[in-house]
Amino acid sequence: MGGDFGPRVTVPASFEYLSENPRISFTLIGDQAEISSFLPPSSADLADRFSIVHTSDYIAMNEKPSKALRSKQSSMALALQAVKADQADACVSAGNTGALMVLARASLGMHEGIDRPAFITEIPTEKGGCHVLDLGANVNCEAKHLLQFAIMGSIISQVVDGKDNPRVGLLNVGQEDMKGNNLVKEAAALLCERTSLNYIGFVEGDHIFSDEADVIVCDGFVGNVALKTSEGLAKMINNLLRQTFQQNPYTKLLGLLMKPFLKKMINQIDPKTHNGASLLGLKGIVIKSHGNADAQSFKQAINRAVREVEQHVPGLIQKRISELGDIGS
Amino acid sequence: MGGDFGPRVTVPASFEYLSENPRISFTLIGDQAEISSFLPPSSADLADRFSIVHTSDYIAMNEKPSKALRSKQSSMALALQAVKADQADACVSAGNTGALMVLARASLGMHEGIDRPAFITEIPTEKGGCHVLDLGANVNCEAKHLLQFAIMGSIISQVVDGKDNPRVGLLNVGQEDMKGNNLVKEAAALLCERTSLNYIGFVEGDHIFSDEADVIVCDGFVGNVALKTSEGLAKMINNLLRQTFQQNPYTKLLGLLMKPFLKKMINQIDPKTHNGASLLGLKGIVIKSHGNADAQSFKQAINRAVREVEQHVPGLIQKRISELGDIGS
Repeated sequence: MGGDFGPRVTVPASFEYLSENPRISFTLIGDQAEISSFLPPSSADLADRFSIVHTSDYIAMNEKPSKALRSKQSSMALALQAVKADQADACVSAGNTGALMVLARASLGMHEGIDRPAFITEIPTEKGGCHVLDLGANVNCEAKHLLQFAIMGSIISQVVDGKDNPRVGLLNVGQEDMKGNNLVKEAAALLCERTSLNYIGFVEGDHIFSDEADVIVCDGFVGNVALKTSEGLAKMINNLLRQTFQQNPYTKLLGLLMKPFLKKMINQIDPKTHNGASLLGLKGIVIKSHGNADAQSFKQAINRAVREVEQHVPGLIQKRISELGDIGS
Repeated sequence: MGGDFGPRVTVPASFEYLSENPRISFTLIGDQAEISSFLPPSSADLADRFSIVHTSDYIAMNEKPSKALRSKQSSMALALQAVKADQADACVSAGNTGALMVLARASLGMHEGIDRPAFITEIPTEKGGCHVLDLGANVNCEAKHLLQFAIMGSIISQVVDGKDNPRVGLLNVGQEDMKGNNLVKEAAALLCERTSLNYIGFVEGDHIFSDEADVIVCDGFVGNVALKTSEGLAKMINNLLRQTFQQNPYTKLLGLLMKPFLKKMINQIDPKTHNGASLLGLKGIVIKSHGNADAQSFKQAINRAVREVEQHVPGLIQKRISELGDIGS
């Protein structure tokens, strides 16, 4: 029900995904009448692979997380309960981020040893991608939380990218030891002690895109600003590129001829093609889609959920943390 | 002497600037032999508009600011003393950022009412530009510092852009009042009280580029990450665009035909064309160039200094702060 467009986007996106991915099935949770009004004609053929769970209660985009906690029958609460009860393998939502975080933590619980969940996503780089966390779940962090994020991020890179020994960097204003605020200096000391991590030291904002690290760790305030800043710039460049080709009939023709070649680049930088942040640290898979996602983009968030299910992400994180023992929680 | 390339870049850049700007003159401060080895043939014609002050002492890029403070005869210290003694109108450096900040503060002193200097630059947006501060001078800030940055940023926007009532936003992870870390919540309360400021509330990372604010305020850690992240992404997109056009003879031809049209866009997003952050709050003009600036880019930093001289920036900031009275210092 959430996001800027609600079922108008999430329902068509789900059915497109269903028809393209025969092994998947969905439970759509929310207002039955509204959901039904967006069912595509093809839904009749897919009747055995989706069900609707009706609830008229939902969490508004501007609702306080504390109030959201009290709505036991909201579509978001029911979706998370379905994951908890093993009726669903993952929950995907475009709704209220703060509410999703608080509800997910309350419903599913945290891995032992992890204090707080963290949002992670893979930011596309020149040669691949860089996993960055936290992207906004925790705006006031302590050093031990950054250590926990580093451990979870490293596991994600191992699982998703198949990397043996992912390079973990700590986001800072410079690479020299003396640089940075108190938080990153304390976190650096904790990370250096962890021989099980391939900690490569401080990295700077531009290193996100230059393949210097496989995982970049920061507090949620900094990560959120970095992510949104890059999304804003990518959007601006996309607009400028379109305007450049729209100048006159001659540039329009050149744009048409260039289109097949530019497509790959535009896809690579378009935030829409990289939608879906995973809420790590929970005993279950929860994926947050951008609120303003269109159907194409919401499908990316679903796809992230499916990949994490296939790769057994929460189980692997729990196993690895148990092996490591105390990680400061 | 500073930056990744030293006089190899700064000297030719200065002479290009001199020959293009007849009203300007330079004092080049550093190792005379090294500076002289990079003097262009045209320098003989410009002999009345430049001088060299020799010193063999300079501050290394990785030197600690505390140690830099003790080097009274370093090229950076002498350049700042020249501003202090009114022998120069501004100091431009590509050197050690931390050292420049500490030395500038010690040499020139702060405006009364301002606790700390802040780096500001104008980030290009779709319709113009957005002044963002602090970009890294202060990695541990209190709310009152963000208020002081807001006041200085607002004055810069008035002076540089001629805006009557610049819109000032506070960088945060969301726009709702309940969002953010303790620092931005406290700063928001201070900014709301200031009726002399056109405070528009919280803005997010992507708003830097969408012309929602004329001035965006943040602590130096967050600002530095946001700036470098956008520089890194712009560089990556530039590379991808070049690769797209280099794929085969056909795309090379299209690239050649598009070049004059793409140039404007590439200039707009290229960090090199926006080099030069001003260190605000000082009783004098100090401009920091990127350490990796080439000559074209270093000229932009010189140009920023010249503009601030022409616009009497420090004097106007001091005057406005005196009018405002107590601003929490």
